Amino acid sequence: MKTYFECFPCYIQQALRAARLFTDDPKVIKSVIDAVGSLFPEISLDKTSAEIGEFIYGKIREVSGVEDPYEDMKNKNTDEALQLVPFCQNIIADSADPLFIAIKMAIAGNVIDFAINHTVDIPAEIEAILHKELTINDYDLLKKRLDTSETILYIGDNAGESVFDRLLIEQLAGKKVYFGVRGRPVINDVVEKDAKRAGIDKVAELVSSGSAVPGTIISKCSEEFNELFRNADIVISKGQGNYEGLSDEEREIFFLLRVKCEVIAGHIGVPVGSLVLMRSGN
Amino acid sequence: MKTYFECFPCYIQQALRAARLFTDDPKVIKSVIDAVGSLFPEISLDKTSAEIGEFIYGKIREVSGVEDPYEDMKNKNTDEALQLVPFCQNIIADSADPLFIAIKMAIAGNVIDFAINHTVDIPAEIEAILHKELTINDYDLLKKRLDTSETILYIGDNAGESVFDRLLIEQLAGKKVYFGVRGRPVINDVVEKDAKRAGIDKVAELVSSGSAVPGTIISKCSEEFNELFRNADIVISKGQGNYEGLSDEEREIFFLLRVKCEVIAGHIGVPVGSLVLMRSGN
Repeated sequence: MKTYFECFPCYIQQALRAARLFTDDPKVIKSVIDAVGSLFPEISLDKTSAEIGEFIYGKIREVSGVEDPYEDMKNKNTDEALQLVPFCQNIIADSADPLFIAIKMAIAGNVIDFAINHTVDIPAEIEAILHKELTINDYDLLKKRLDTSETILYIGDNAGESVFDRLLIEQLAGKKVYFGVRGRPVINDVVEKDAKRAGIDKVAELVSSGSAVPGTIISKCSEEFNELFRNADIVISKGQGNYEGLSDEEREIFFLLRVKCEVIAGHIGVPVGSLVLMRSGN
Repeated sequence: MKTYFECFPCYIQQALRAARLFTDDPKVIKSVIDAVGSLFPEISLDKTSAEIGEFIYGKIREVSGVEDPYEDMKNKNTDEALQLVPFCQNIIADSADPLFIAIKMAIAGNVIDFAINHTVDIPAEIEAILHKELTINDYDLLKKRLDTSETILYIGDNAGESVFDRLLIEQLAGKKVYFGVRGRPVINDVVEKDAKRAGIDKVAELVSSGSAVPGTIISKCSEEFNELFRNADIVISKGQGNYEGLSDEEREIFFLLRVKCEVIAGHIGVPVGSLVLMRSGN
């Protein structure tokens, strides 16, 4: 998925929000905004937003002088989500279709993303989402694939959200699940240590994208990741960042996401706020 | 009023919207966005948004190669507003307090601003606004001033809106009213020829700011405008652009505006969407 003109104001918005999360110093905030604005002439429209995100958050890393400026926030998000695990596991266990409810939970978890929505009441969101229909629902197809699959590459999104991914992966017992994490800290995206904090290493094998893109651009990923992406029986991709990078890939992918902006909404053809379980590719 | 960090994404948004209004060529649109983004390092936070607007729309003028790229649109807006004049004049004439209703009309006219809101149903907006309270209402004070005043400087905002300013100026019969217009076309702001099309020259004397700022920054205005600003018994300022430049001036000013963004809302201390008739200064 290429970059749209509408993404450019959002890049500045993201730079501002990301800068404010690690500093109150107006000079530092301004320097981040300036750096991102000045980059515009170098951003061609055939780049994906995720690639530009890599630059923006690389700049934040550089300006902050810290490898993982959002570590504390990610830990806080993850710990908060972990407290909800028994509550969520009960709902899943008590439901008529635990797998489907776990999928909805995983989509609900996608609201924990301070890069886009930074103040959300998670338990309330979960309740609301459980009562909401999926706007695109390729669940039957996914279930059919699961019947004949052994390996799954599940590509994570942000750190706190991974706790909810774990709940879904628990429903995939018997399969060999690989959980994709970012190769380097980039905003609140999940890296190996975050996935371990969320307990994913207990239910899946962690695999790094080898990249600092806040999404998944296959050409920028490690050979190991590429191989898994090519050979896994099923690929599940969480969130908008991964969608942006993967939506044009030929192979079959199941996207799980909550649509958070007009650009993605227009690309998929659904309203903002939609919950989506969508198969793409062949 | 200084620039806030929140204004920076909006500068890109405005550049995009303004570019799209005169071209479909992606390369031209991109060049406008790039130019504005690249300018960020030169924008200090003590500049006002109106000054930055001057640059943005100067850039559009340069890229479009046309002195007044929005001329057709302004004419269309003005002509549409002119068709509503009898409807509005009747409402004003039939009301218990024609001056107050004309003020509300003038604020209603402030919604015609494609730089911020580009699709609005004007008659519906007028009806809605007539039934809405002013969040800040210094009407009694303005009326008191009018009792002892002879000269009024009424600073216009955008072109179509001027038709509604005319309705208010008609209620100021007996006063010497000067109507401030921009010195050079800048987006949809009112210049002399637009004011004439709206019929303002029949009810007021037109005076140019001498500046291409889409607002009023006194230090950038002509000596003639400065003199009027200093010496007029009453200054009435329409819209956000003028507010941004004039809110820190010492002299007494009556601001008429509809609050359209979070930054202005925060500065005034009212919610977005508020209708305001506010006195400031001494």
